[in-house]
Amino acid sequence: MRHFLSLKDYEKSEILEILSLARDIKRDLKANKSTRPLAGKSLAMIFEKSSTRTRVSFEVGAAQLGMRPIFLSSRDIQLGRGEPMKDTARVISRMVDMVMIRTFAHSRLEEFAAYSSAPVINGLSDDFHPAQLMADYMTMRELGCGDRPIVAWVGDGNNMANSWLMLASKMGFELRVAAPKGYEIAQKWVELAKDFALKSGAKLYFYNDPIKAVQDANVVATDVWTSMGREEENEKRLKDFGGFGVTSELMSRADRKAILLHCLPAHRGEEITDEAFESHADSIFLEAENRLHAQKGVMVWLSDAQKRQS
Amino acid sequence: MRHFLSLKDYEKSEILEILSLARDIKRDLKANKSTRPLAGKSLAMIFEKSSTRTRVSFEVGAAQLGMRPIFLSSRDIQLGRGEPMKDTARVISRMVDMVMIRTFAHSRLEEFAAYSSAPVINGLSDDFHPAQLMADYMTMRELGCGDRPIVAWVGDGNNMANSWLMLASKMGFELRVAAPKGYEIAQKWVELAKDFALKSGAKLYFYNDPIKAVQDANVVATDVWTSMGREEENEKRLKDFGGFGVTSELMSRADRKAILLHCLPAHRGEEITDEAFESHADSIFLEAENRLHAQKGVMVWLSDAQKRQS
Amino acid sequence: MRHFLSLKDYEKSEILEILSLARDIKRDLKANKSTRPLAGKSLAMIFEKSSTRTRVSFEVGAAQLGMRPIFLSSRDIQLGRGEPMKDTARVISRMVDMVMIRTFAHSRLEEFAAYSSAPVINGLSDDFHPAQLMADYMTMRELGCGDRPIVAWVGDGNNMANSWLMLASKMGFELRVAAPKGYEIAQKWVELAKDFALKSGAKLYFYNDPIKAVQDANVVATDVWTSMGREEENEKRLKDFGGFGVTSELMSRADRKAILLHCLPAHRGEEITDEAFESHADSIFLEAENRLHAQKGVMVWLSDAQKRQS
Repeated sequence: MRHFLSLKDYEKSEILEILSLARDIKRDLKANKSTRPLAGKSLAMIFEKSSTRTRVSFEVGAAQLGMRPIFLSSRDIQLGRGEPMKDTARVISRMVDMVMIRTFAHSRLEEFAAYSSAPVINGLSDDFHPAQLMADYMTMRELGCGDRPIVAWVGDGNNMANSWLMLASKMGFELRVAAPKGYEIAQKWVELAKDFALKSGAKLYFYNDPIKAVQDANVVATDVWTSMGREEENEKRLKDFGGFGVTSELMSRADRKAILLHCLPAHRGEEITDEAFESHADSIFLEAENRLHAQKGVMVWLSDAQKRQS
Repeated sequence: MRHFLSLKDYEKSEILEILSLARDIKRDLKANKSTRPLAGKSLAMIFEKSSTRTRVSFEVGAAQLGMRPIFLSSRDIQLGRGEPMKDTARVISRMVDMVMIRTFAHSRLEEFAAYSSAPVINGLSDDFHPAQLMADYMTMRELGCGDRPIVAWVGDGNNMANSWLMLASKMGFELRVAAPKGYEIAQKWVELAKDFALKSGAKLYFYNDPIKAVQDANVVATDVWTSMGREEENEKRLKDFGGFGVTSELMSRADRKAILLHCLPAHRGEEITDEAFESHADSIFLEAENRLHAQKGVMVWLSDAQKRQS
Repeated sequence: MRHFLSLKDYEKSEILEILSLARDIKRDLKANKSTRPLAGKSLAMIFEKSSTRTRVSFEVGAAQLGMRPIFLSSRDIQLGRGEPMKDTARVISRMVDMVMIRTFAHSRLEEFAAYSSAPVINGLSDDFHPAQLMADYMTMRELGCGDRPIVAWVGDGNNMANSWLMLASKMGFELRVAAPKGYEIAQKWVELAKDFALKSGAKLYFYNDPIKAVQDANVVATDVWTSMGREEENEKRLKDFGGFGVTSELMSRADRKAILLHCLPAHRGEEITDEAFESHADSIFLEAENRLHAQKGVMVWLSDAQKRQS
């Protein structure tokens, strides 16, 4: 059974299939054409971290496909009282048709998937955020950044950076990652991406200097410096990330038509200035909206994959 | 775009349109006639305060209209972690078709509405509770209190009192507000209501004596003395509101057929006696049920208004 | 109006009707035949205790029947702030078509039902868990344990034990309860069950020795030793329940084809060994899945009963 835990498990052709489904679904919605390909199905949504975008986009998206979404916070279910993941997985996956999990350790997601009789979607883990990346890629394509864009990641070598690395190395575009010393992407993901790049032709560069990364880029992407669960590191990080904030000045070094992406929430005055944010609000909020459409593409693709199997 | 934040922003004719929609919707429901005028749409329900009636009435009502309601408590979304309202507004309103917010400061509601691309409904703020008032007005009309009733508000000069003032001054009926010294309605709302009264012919009286207010009234309305978020004032308020409790004796001074309204929850022995409550339980629980129907009227009206605009 | 609070209020023929509905509903679901007998209705789900299985099974089940389920945790509604149960009951039951409550004291459930204008379902109380028992009975029947099985309950004389006692004494099969001294089933339920047994022919035995109970049994059932809300007793209970854990060795004394049931969550190494659990995982997770189907049977039965009345 196919799950959607990381883009590292997906072929380029599969990513393009999901994107194509997402585009069709978005076009139909905008044309008020109602299609409910997953009518009567249900989606369990398990949240071990709080969320706005993931919550609303999956819940609305599932409902628009005809599914019943069920929001389960770890406060409301036994997971919070220490039931083994493998038991919860076996119970829930027998009752619903698909499961989305937002958790901390990626290994929890993998354990759930190993015991699940229904496809599992990663709604954010400490290692990857593939649903966000599908939305980001969709947004780049909609805004005309082309097949072979130059993308600059400026900031933390976190789950978003890892995910950009997987997307670029699978699709074959140029990615430049600029992270402060000590906050680079983990070496194991770099090695894996370099392997994928041999096939796709992706160019991958790693800097400790945002200016080098951004030069002539078509897309500049960033994220908060302190992810949820790491709040105690906040003060140190604010110092270590000095100079890595995305400003209008930094954006002026990118391509004249470059777009700015931010997966939100944004901390103005830290990783991005209010000026840079608001002057690129159109692309940032389009990116947020595309979570809805891209994830519907993922859910339909997984359901189709399951049908092909049986 | 029209929002539903306060009755001060609505014309008498518009309030009557909403009421008329609500009546038709209630009649159809009771006749088991299913109509789903908002099928396929979704409603985000954002709660910064806990709630029974608002939660259930909006969630059931939206679903009966064919919408997908999404319950978002501030615990579950990033609002709780300090994302600016204007960012949350831009994200959520791009994903759903309508938004209901239950919050503290009315200004938060206004900020959300300013940035929202979808209509926003006030599910209770520190200043106004217009959805409750639509239910109260519907209940008065159903119970035969007539076009020009005398309404007595007995208790705190709070958001409910403000809202009665707006309703009376827009619709042109007589409202008598009795609040203890120091707990009167804020002067700015009194001034605004007097302006509206010039056009509508409403009669507005303000007392510090419940007996004066209630004399021959057709409707007596009250609410808890200590609203949510003010619990630390409770002891002082219990003392200051002495004599303002609604008792059977007080009700006996009103019109023989007077009805009693309470937006609930009720604190027996404080603002209302158990005897007064239970002997008027029919009107009080009809009022609660009418939240469901009145709010469906509001949602359909807002959707229609949006269609007229585009 | 009929509620579903305990099997003690149900006739054998009614329990069989519910089971029959549940089987038909399960068969149709597995055949992808969509039937929505409760389309357009809504179910309020009130949780005063956290839950995985009850939550997911009722929410998915209601949706599959066409109902709108509304999840209300006591954190999110006024119940948590001390509104009297009788007021909440009158408000909620006027807005929805059915109510499920998971609570502590059974008396809270009974109070709600007394004031409710909609049927009420027990989703677990300190005294009974009838929805679980319907799933357990369905599982026994599916797995071929026959009309007159021997069932051994090993462990705490808790709400699950009480519920097995009601099921056995109503349906007329043999139940052997083995609980440590001081943890036996309350005498009032034993007396009541003995009354029912006079009619049904049930055989009821009570031991303080698990080996005696399990000998040649067709079904062995257990539950955690420390139910939610009793965590402070945990250490004492671990000691007092020594020797009552279900092991492969204990299972070997039961009938060769005996099935093992556990309503979950399981605490491996306490009431059950990992080996015993995993070697009977098929029946245990079938039991969990049958919550979904059995409860749909209950909801349809209650709705039918209401129609017959009106």
